This record gives sequence, C-alpha cells and structure tokens, in this order.
Amino acid sequence: MPSYTAPVKDMQFILHEVLDLSGQDIPGYADLDADFTGAVLEEAGKIATDVLTPLNQVGDRQGCVLENGVVRTPDGFRAAFDQLKEGGWMSLDAAEEFGGQGLPYIMHTAVNETFVSANMAFNMYQGLTHGAYSAILTHGTDAQKAKWLPKLTTCEWTGTMNLTEPHCGTDLGLMRTKAVPQDDGSYEITGQKIFISAGDHDMAENIVHLVLAKIPGGPDGIKGVSLFIVPKVMVDDDGTLGARNGVSCGKIEEKMGIHGNSTCVMNYDAATGWLLGEEHKGMRAMFTMMNEARLGVGLQGYAQAEVAYQNAVDYANDRLQGRAVTGAENPDGPADPLIVHPDIRRTLMDQKSFVEGARAFTYWGANLIDRAHRNDDATALGLISLLTPVIKGFLTDKGFEFATDAQQVYGGHGYIEEWGMSQFARDARIAMIYEGANGIQALDLVGRKLALDGGKHVMGFFDIVKSFLKEHDGDESLKAGILDPLKAGSKDLQSAAMYFMQVGGKNPNDALAGSTDFMHLFGHVCLGLMWGRMAVAAKAALDGGASDRDFYEAKLATARYYMARQMPATAMHRARIESGSETVMALAPAQF
Amino acid sequence: MPSYTAPVKDMQFILHEVLDLSGQDIPGYADLDADFTGAVLEEAGKIATDVLTPLNQVGDRQGCVLENGVVRTPDGFRAAFDQLKEGGWMSLDAAEEFGGQGLPYIMHTAVNETFVSANMAFNMYQGLTHGAYSAILTHGTDAQKAKWLPKLTTCEWTGTMNLTEPHCGTDLGLMRTKAVPQDDGSYEITGQKIFISAGDHDMAENIVHLVLAKIPGGPDGIKGVSLFIVPKVMVDDDGTLGARNGVSCGKIEEKMGIHGNSTCVMNYDAATGWLLGEEHKGMRAMFTMMNEARLGVGLQGYAQAEVAYQNAVDYANDRLQGRAVTGAENPDGPADPLIVHPDIRRTLMDQKSFVEGARAFTYWGANLIDRAHRNDDATALGLISLLTPVIKGFLTDKGFEFATDAQQVYGGHGYIEEWGMSQFARDARIAMIYEGANGIQALDLVGRKLALDGGKHVMGFFDIVKSFLKEHDGDESLKAGILDPLKAGSKDLQSAAMYFMQVGGKNPNDALAGSTDFMHLFGHVCLGLMWGRMAVAAKAALDGGASDRDFYEAKLATARYYMARQMPATAMHRARIESGSETVMALAPAQF
Repeated sequence: MPSYTAPVKDMQFILHEVLDLSGQDIPGYADLDADFTGAVLEEAGKIATDVLTPLNQVGDRQGCVLENGVVRTPDGFRAAFDQLKEGGWMSLDAAEEFGGQGLPYIMHTAVNETFVSANMAFNMYQGLTHGAYSAILTHGTDAQKAKWLPKLTTCEWTGTMNLTEPHCGTDLGLMRTKAVPQDDGSYEITGQKIFISAGDHDMAENIVHLVLAKIPGGPDGIKGVSLFIVPKVMVDDDGTLGARNGVSCGKIEEKMGIHGNSTCVMNYDAATGWLLGEEHKGMRAMFTMMNEARLGVGLQGYAQAEVAYQNAVDYANDRLQGRAVTGAENPDGPADPLIVHPDIRRTLMDQKSFVEGARAFTYWGANLIDRAHRNDDATALGLISLLTPVIKGFLTDKGFEFATDAQQVYGGHGYIEEWGMSQFARDARIAMIYEGANGIQALDLVGRKLALDGGKHVMGFFDIVKSFLKEHDGDESLKAGILDPLKAGSKDLQSAAMYFMQVGGKNPNDALAGSTDFMHLFGHVCLGLMWGRMAVAAKAALDGGASDRDFYEAKLATARYYMARQMPATAMHRARIESGSETVMALAPAQF
Repeated sequence: MPSYTAPVKDMQFILHEVLDLSGQDIPGYADLDADFTGAVLEEAGKIATDVLTPLNQVGDRQGCVLENGVVRTPDGFRAAFDQLKEGGWMSLDAAEEFGGQGLPYIMHTAVNETFVSANMAFNMYQGLTHGAYSAILTHGTDAQKAKWLPKLTTCEWTGTMNLTEPHCGTDLGLMRTKAVPQDDGSYEITGQKIFISAGDHDMAENIVHLVLAKIPGGPDGIKGVSLFIVPKVMVDDDGTLGARNGVSCGKIEEKMGIHGNSTCVMNYDAATGWLLGEEHKGMRAMFTMMNEARLGVGLQGYAQAEVAYQNAVDYANDRLQGRAVTGAENPDGPADPLIVHPDIRRTLMDQKSFVEGARAFTYWGANLIDRAHRNDDATALGLISLLTPVIKGFLTDKGFEFATDAQQVYGGHGYIEEWGMSQFARDARIAMIYEGANGIQALDLVGRKLALDGGKHVMGFFDIVKSFLKEHDGDESLKAGILDPLKAGSKDLQSAAMYFMQVGGKNPNDALAGSTDFMHLFGHVCLGLMWGRMAVAAKAALDGGASDRDFYEAKLATARYYMARQMPATAMHRARIESGSETVMALAPAQF
C-alpha cells in the first residue's frame, strides 16, 4: 500500500524562509509564526497519514453507490469525515462569526495540501463545501448567511456547485435549467445538471446546492444566468430540517478516477430555491471565488505528484535491479537499488523540482489572495488573477505528467492497481479538466488576463522577476546556475507576450494558437522564479550556519536542476508560439 | 460509444507513395501492389470496425475472471477470436510450410495496426502467439517446429512469454525459476512468473508458454538463463492433447487498463518443459525477435493515439460550444463547433501530425525488418536495431500523451468511462512499460546501440537524412517550412550524439542522464524525416495532377505543422542532454 508523509519541513521552509509569513503586514499573519504553523501542519500530517491515506485505495475500489435513491460513500469515509469535523479541520479559514477559526487562506492551503495528497476524492467533499460557503459569504443576504453558513462552516452540511448540463460545460450561456419566480419570493427550479461532484452522499444531514439557472424572460445567453441556493432538505427558519426538496441524484458516473467522490447527475424537479446575489448576475457570483477554487485545483495537481513522488523514491531505494554503471553500490546485495541509475535519478529530480517549485508557487498565490482580501490590495488581486490560470493549468498538466512519471518508476508494478500508483495518475487526471479545462485556462490567460488593465499585471510580474535578478546581480555563486537561466526564460516569456501584442489585434488566432504554450512558458518562469527565491533562502541558511545542511544543499542542487533541465522548455514554447497560427489553422475541418 | 475507421488511404499513401513497396527488391514485395494491399486493408478495417471495436468497451468493463481455476474472457471475445482465425488473419506473415500465408512482415504490421486501434487488449492474444511462433521458428529443432508451429500459426493454440518474477523485471539475472533436467531429455520447471499477458484464457485448447528458467549448476546471473517450451496441456507425438501440465494461473492482476487481456500470475509446479535453443542462451533466444516485438509495442502506442484522435475529431466537429474568435462560423446554430477554436485545432494537429508520422516511421521500420530478414541485409538489420528503442520508447510515450490530449478535447465527458476516451489513455499507458520500460529503451539506445559497430548505424542514419536534404536542396517550396527545420533538428541530434562520445568514456553518467531526452530527440528527427518524405510524395502527387487534392494538401500542411510546432523540441532535449549529469546526480539518496 502506498504511504504518505506530510512534507512539513519543506512547507515550513517556504512559509517562513521564502515567504516570511509572520513578517508580512497582513491581518492575521503575525500569529503565523513557525511554531504555530509547524504544530498545525504536523497535526494535519498525522491525520493525513493515519486516517486519510488508508482510505484512499478503499475509496478507489468501492467507489460511491446509488441504491434506492441513496448514495453510499466508501467504507470508513463517514467516520473519517466526522473525525475531521470534530477536530475543526473543516473550518480553518472560515469567519469566526459563523463558527470558523478565521485563519488566513494560506494556512488552509497548506493543510489542504496534506489532505489532498492523502486522499483527493475524500477531500473534495470539504472542498466543494468551502466553495459554497465562500459564495454565500460574499453574495448572500444577512438572513441567508445566518441560515446557511454556520452549518457549512463545520461541514455538518456540505455544499456543491451546479454549472454543467449535458449539452454545455464551458459555454454556460446554452443552459436550459429554469428558475420560475414564486409568490413567496422563492424560485421553482427545474432542469438537469451533470458532473456534480459530491452531489449526493451519506456524510451530512443536508446538502446545499448552488445552482445556475435561467429566469424566464431574462436576457439571452450567459447574461441571463442567475445563481440559486437549493437545499437537499428544506430548512425551517429556526434551523430545523423539514421535508425533502425536489432534488435527486439520478445517476453516479463511472469515472477514470476519484471514485471515492460521488459525481452525480442531479435532477431538479420543481425544487425550491432562493436567489443568491442579483438576478442575471449568476456567473459573477459563481466566479467570485474563482481564484481560490482554481488555486485549489492547481494544488490537487501537484499534491498528487507529491504523493506519487514520495512512493517512487521509496521504491527506487528499495527495489534492487541492475548495477550502477560506475561500479556496484550495493556489492553485498544481489543488485543495486534503482536509485543508482541516472535515468531514474533524472525522473525523480524532474518530479522533486516540480513539486517543490509548485508548492512555493501555490503558497505564494495563496499569500497574494490573503493580501488581496485582507488588505484590499488591488495590485495583489490583479497579480493573482493573472497567475490563477497558470497555477491551475500548468500545475495540473505537469502534476499529471509527473504522477505518471512516478508510476513509471515502478515498471509493471505501476500498472497494477494493488500498488496504488495508477490511482494517483487517474485521480490527478481530472484536475486538468474540471474547474475550467486547461485549454480554457490558457484562453483566459492569453485572451483576457494578459491585456487586463492595459497589461499592467503582466508588467508587474516582469518587474518582480527583474527586481529579483537585480537584487542578486552580484552573486557569482548563483549567476550561471540560477540567475542566467531565469533571465533567459523571462526573456522568452516577454518576447512571446510582445508577439501576442503585435499580432493579436490583426489576427487573434495568432495569439490563441499559442495559448497553451504560453501558459506552460509562463509556468516555467514562475517556477524558475520560485527556485530562484528558494535558492537564495537556502544559501542564506547555509551562510548563516544552519544545522540541517543536507536539506539546504538539496534545495540549492534542485534549483540548479530545474534551471538546467526544465527551463530549456521556455525556448521551445516561444518558438512554437512565434510560428503563429498559419500551420495550426491550415486545414478545413473535413481534412482532419 | 467510440468509433474507429481504418485509415486505409493514409496507410496506402505510406506503403506506395512514400515507401514504394512493390518497387523494392525484397522477396515477396513484388506482389504488394496497391490493389492487393488496399483490398487486404479494407477487409481488415471492416473487421476492426464491425467485430473488434464493439468489444473494446465490453472487454474493459468485464475484464477477465478467474473462477475455479478457469480464466473466462469477456463476452464475445471467443467468437471474435474464432472469426479472425477462420478468416486467416492470424497467420498473414507466418511461413507457408507451417500453414501461414508467407506475406512480408510489413503487411502484418499494417493489418495489426487496425486491430490494435480497434481493440488492443483483444489483439494481444494473437500478438503474444506471434512472438512464441517466431521464437520457436528461429530456435526450435525440426521436431519442435513440426509439433508446435502449425497450431501456433493458426492460433488454435496461443503462446505466451514468461520473463518477469516478483523480484525481477528488468534484471532477469536475479531469476529464481528452476529447470531440472530429467532422464527423458525434458526439464522439470518450478517457479512463479508474474505479469504474463494472455497467460490463461478460454479461447484456445492449448497454450504454449515460453519460460525463462535457470538450470541448477549453470552460470550465475543472466548467463545462466535458458528458455523452455512449457505447454498448458501435454501434447502426444501424434499431436493429440493429453493431460494437464503442472502449469496454473494463480491470479489475474487488476490493472489500469487492457482489462480484456488476462495478465496472470503463472505457477509452474514441477511442470514438464523442453529446452528451446541452447542451454544458458535463453536471453538470446528470447530476444531474437526483440526488434519485431518492440516495434509491435511502439505500434500500440500510436494506434491508441489514432483511434483516440479519430474520436476527438468527431467530437470537435459535433460539440457546439462558444464562438470562433474571428466571427461565428455556425451563425444559425446556438454555438460553433469546438473545432473552430485555435487551441482545439492545435491539439488535433499535434495528434494528427504525430500519428501519421508515427505510422510512416513504423512502416519504414517493418520494411527494414523485411529487408534484414528476407534479403539478409546487415545494414538494414543494424539500422532497425538502432531505431527499435526509438520506435518503442518515443512512440509509446507520445502515444499516451496524445491519447490523453484526445481525451482532453471531450472535457468532462473524457473522464467518464461511458465515452471510451479514458480507456484509450489507460490502455496506451502499458505500452510505455512492458517489453522493456521506456527508460530501458533509452538505456539500450544510448548505452548500447549508439556505439554498436563503431557507431556505424547512427552514422548511417545521419547519411540518410543528409541525402534526403541534399536531394531536395534546390526546392524553394520546401526549404523554409520543411527542410530547414529538419536540418536544424538533425544538427541537434548530431551534437547530442557527439556530446555522448566525448563524455561517455570519462563519465558514463553524463551520457545516461540524457538517455531519455536523446530517445525523444531522436524520435523527433525520425518523424521529421518521415514528414519530409511525406511532403515530397504529396508534392509529387499534386504536381502530377492527383485528383484528391484535399488529401495531399493536408499532408503538406501537416508536415509544415510538425516542423513548426514539434521540431522545436529538439533544441530543448539537446540543451538538457548537454547540461550533463552533475545536477542529475547531485543528491544523495537520503536527500530525496
């Protein structure tokens, strides 16, 4: 069975030595000293290892079952869910007035990583609830907040997001679900939604569905979509549960992975719902929390790669096969461990340098979200809005790639379900698709975010890279291995962005044909910047006489690896982008 | 349900306009004119579409079941297997003296592609039999050939390859299965083998296992391994079936994919076997057919990408979602089809340019194998030995990547098993692992094949590229879009090969740390060469006034796409390779 240990040391390094959390002037951050975050992360890590990891394969094998209208989650899920509720793990960053602990979002993010690595399907029940909580917190009336938030905070009730219909996923303007106004101010909701994660289950006494629907007579397309609160069970004003609402799970989908999460077809049959936010402003309400939701999915990508990597390292150390080309390293054994072989090293370094870079990138993103929300900082908001599609798209594409690479280390055993490596890849695969498929992320990045506010945010990003390079300009120990490759990557990114500005107006296809490559090019520069920062922090620790030299030297070496072996991708992406759309759009549809 | 149509037009184009089969001086090739191969491929395509495609999802869902010692294949497999046997499809390239049709291997390869695209798991039963047939044909005594080959030719009996044991896959020298000589000249075989594809099933009355085992007292390690014929059911000299041998299936593995194929734990419990080939020369006998077996696996990689691509194209044409950025293309419909979007085009072009390039590469490889075997051509043998790890490793890595990309076109529907796209990716995944994991292919390429015969074969490959470039040097219409990028890619490959020669002697890790990148770099140059040849052939057809201009113009455009969008990868791989092993090997195992 695969194992998982929370990488608390690396998390702490990023939170404190790279980001210097408690030194930041963000409300709530002063309390986030290393002792506090270390204690929380250790405790979360124990739960991840002891409670959630053992249920991961159980969830994959049993899946969720719909029987007589009731959805049954896998054995042990309910008890674990109760345990996490009781421990207060569901409400870390929820508002104190609704029973939460009011911690910054970055704390939720780090804890979330351990739970997602341990059991992604399980953690989605809480993740969706967090999204519903945020939408109601931001757009609900006081009465709605009082009614729904306390139970969502604790996960006594869970939440869902209902967007997709059979004929529309990305293009929600085609939606058919109807919301007919009733005399009492409620709406009668009728329609079918598909791919509803955590749509129904047996772990909470109520489920609060947030449902997009059209009010008849409203504007056409996406401008006529409104958001509704539609509970599974009706709730009286005093909070007691009443009759079942007209909401039912019609089917559980058979999926490639995340079997432990119930992906439901949800039927709304004259169900009662209440408008959340304004009429016809449903998309805005649904997407208010988009940066957080998409960061959470990017996290799923690298968190699956992390747990897959940990197991690949164990296997590479344990499995004896072949001899080192430079001479036996385990001469008394029948063979050397896999880890002596350069190609195994190469793949493990690929995985390690990605996962640690991705962690730093994601925590930086969570940090920006805290700054945007808690300090009302428009610059931080603009920057995280720009980076969000990169975090979501790049980290999930790469997360799947490296989870697959980790599986490869196991050889044939990686293909057998018993060993658990296949599940990491299968589970990671969904993160590239949901919460906006990665092609949509690339479109959002190139078609919208780049030019937002006159390109101010991307210029801001380049300034950050430039400042970093300038600050360490004289450091010869970092120049060739770290700073020069980062500079080259950043130059490729600037060139590609410039290309888009020049051609985008004349032929938007020239920009959009390079969108996925641009997202990856941007991702590499972001991870390069993170590795630059981590290298600087590691060097400072070593210069300061830190005791754990192995850790810091590994950081520096891994930074150099990323620059030597991953950053060369930026030139490739740039070349592809700057070849334009001519070869991409040359064929007529019938010629494919 | 996914569909599949054999790409006969493209196959014919490669066989005749690119490779000019019937013009080649290889025994048997004169008969392979376009009418003949077209008729065979159309007929094979019908079976693939009508018989095998409908069973693909059935096989995935039902899998194989072991009950009371008997392995049951999925519903419909046996009837389909009988139908293919009766149609003579199993014996296309088997020797006429044993009941085969004696066709060249390239014909088997093209037919095999359609069957693999339609149903990879099903086709493996025949594929393994083909391997066992070849090993006995090459290494068997006349009596062994007479006894085993006629039934293997027709697939009345099927075959298996037994290499892996629980503690050894790649490093077969660690093997524990024993073969004790008996007075009657047979051997008593005892041990356990795992991951035995088609190890047991209900579609043939006998199964001929080829089993690697050690004769006690022989040399240590890989030099003490011998190969044995061990039938499931004993066969009398007159060919009648006797008692069961001491061979049994202990378990069927639960796998990520190819569920329709029974992957068995095979227990040999004092089973009776007969030596095939010489004592202690088992590896040589097992690997005689390695080029063919590995080419067959490379084919699986692109064949899965092909069927996934076909379905992605259909979906992209059918699914209405969003509007073209350059103005509505389906103004009367609620939205435009996905295929109008540049990023969808980009991914479909990636898939198309890979699959068609891979097909040409694989058929060229099969052509070289025919030339090596039928003309006893040492140059062809040397070249295909060099290219085999590239065909296997590059085409399966990329085949999985592009099957996954095709899945991505479906958005959420791609993750749901009902639509079948997940299966293509899951099935394709195994091809990266078995028949020598791709890391081993890269090691074989860089550690062995490159330097073989003083580097003669890689120099031969470079000469082929150079001759091609020289031959078309004056063609301005091909220069910028085709020839220059191919030349640049080839230069990267030469530079990387030169780097290995310079550093490999001093520190072999410097070469091996770049082995996987080199395999991919080599693969891109091979596909680039194929696209160069296809572009020349397409241009000749257009210049000659061919009627199907759409097809040839698409070929030219796709060639330009490959050069613009895929060939830039060669510079990245070269940069990674030439960064050496320092960053790759920097960490101690405990630092991971």
